[in-house]
Amino acid sequence: MITQNPRYRESVRRIFEKARFTEDLGLELTEMGPGWCESSLSVAPRHLQQDGYVHAGVQATIADHTAGGAAGTLLREDQIVLTVEFKINLLRPAVGDLLRCRATVLRQGRSLLVAESEVFASSGSEEKLVAKATATLAALKGK
Amino acid sequence: MITQNPRYRESVRRIFEKARFTEDLGLELTEMGPGWCESSLSVAPRHLQQDGYVHAGVQATIADHTAGGAAGTLLREDQIVLTVEFKINLLRPAVGDLLRCRATVLRQGRSLLVAESEVFASSGSEEKLVAKATATLAALKGK
Amino acid sequence: MITQNPRYRESVRRIFEKARFTEDLGLELTEMGPGWCESSLSVAPRHLQQDGYVHAGVQATIADHTAGGAAGTLLREDQIVLTVEFKINLLRPAVGDLLRCRATVLRQGRSLLVAESEVFASSGSEEKLVAKATATLAALKGK
Amino acid sequence: MITQNPRYRESVRRIFEKARFTEDLGLELTEMGPGWCESSLSVAPRHLQQDGYVHAGVQATIADHTAGGAAGTLLREDQIVLTVEFKINLLRPAVGDLLRCRATVLRQGRSLLVAESEVFASSGSEEKLVAKATATLAALKGK
Repeated sequence: MITQNPRYRESVRRIFEKARFTEDLGLELTEMGPGWCESSLSVAPRHLQQDGYVHAGVQATIADHTAGGAAGTLLREDQIVLTVEFKINLLRPAVGDLLRCRATVLRQGRSLLVAESEVFASSGSEEKLVAKATATLAALKGK
Repeated sequence: MITQNPRYRESVRRIFEKARFTEDLGLELTEMGPGWCESSLSVAPRHLQQDGYVHAGVQATIADHTAGGAAGTLLREDQIVLTVEFKINLLRPAVGDLLRCRATVLRQGRSLLVAESEVFASSGSEEKLVAKATATLAALKGK
Repeated sequence: MITQNPRYRESVRRIFEKARFTEDLGLELTEMGPGWCESSLSVAPRHLQQDGYVHAGVQATIADHTAGGAAGTLLREDQIVLTVEFKINLLRPAVGDLLRCRATVLRQGRSLLVAESEVFASSGSEEKLVAKATATLAALKGK
Repeated sequence: MITQNPRYRESVRRIFEKARFTEDLGLELTEMGPGWCESSLSVAPRHLQQDGYVHAGVQATIADHTAGGAAGTLLREDQIVLTVEFKINLLRPAVGDLLRCRATVLRQGRSLLVAESEVFASSGSEEKLVAKATATLAALKGK
């Protein structure tokens, strides 16, 4: 994967810092490189659904946003990224203290990118894959 | 669609009231009947992504949770609902003061249900379809 | 929905007639209008999977191709349509003599369209919804 | 991944040999092990769509059926596998002489399994990833 933006790290940091929703959620950008991005979330009671598991919407948000970060590492500086669609399989009820997400770009087109995201949950040292998503993202001219 | 639970309204209210994540989000259950459910969200700055649109994760959360509500209208009183997977198409950048979601069960199986959710955004009286999702949900024995 | 091609019927007929795979399958274009398309397939033993149901791949092919036809009604004469992605829920095992598919465009963008397809199976006069799909399609400059 | 069927190879061979649709398509089972399956297809003109690419329905069929094969390696001898849903991203127009598909089970539940499939196209020695799918499959009691 070849980035078109030597300052891609700043652009991706912007995707995480300027997004009010993921800021409020507590999602943190942890690492990145051309074509991939990682994030983590410290799980709190406010992230849970009615039966005590991490809400599918939380997992979906992390998977989507981190996929956007992975796509963001490859875009030109004047482009923004918007999600066209994503699909997520919730593989097991998500429980734990920490969620970690790694997103990887599968295909870099001129205007569309496809990325996949894996969401892991851990309590202590044991980490389990709890969700897997694939997303189509559009590279658009920024404002 | 035939419900197996004469007190389904209470069960679905529980899905909305006990879910900390959608409570914090501000999602409100507005109406329901056997096989369908509606919810709404008053859009605030904390729901936005980095470019000022409603975050895809917010739309996904609403679509998923309301699909769970629609499935919940059909379950037995001792069952809970868990999302197996969902896919969402973000049809246009979501802007507006209010999101409304209507979810409908397409297929009621013994242990699996399939529902679709439409998310609409409005400013004043004009309402637009901004996202459409389909979800597979599992009916499980509750605790 | 507004078509950009007064001769869209010819363009969509070409999508069905020139596609060797759907020709061999026996898929027939039955009706169309701006933003929608219908097709049908007479079910034969060669369409079945190992347990006697219509193969998911047959249902997926019909859903995808008819979505392409629906998108095709809206394109300019010099454009071709390619599927970016689709998702299909197989709602019940498909049995019957005839499959019918109706695809509708949900969103017409400049370069991307989103359509949904419903696949029905019938034996005699009773028709059942057996699958539902949503597809993202790209409008590209033709050769 | 642990299989529940010491004679899983026969069961999976049956999935390929008894499925009329994939037989007619020309899909061949090439290799398997507990939790994974590989297949290949020699591309012929009858597999193409209207613009000369391998039809998305062909790619979807291969991805779905091979995912079923991967799930089949883990089932009990008295169980059959049915696709609940799948989603496929067509990453680039598929051209070439040969398609190869590798499917891997991501999650083995009691009644549901999730698998992902990668479809590669090649001409000569260069092989490219052309599609990626994730599928939810149900393990059902056979007849």
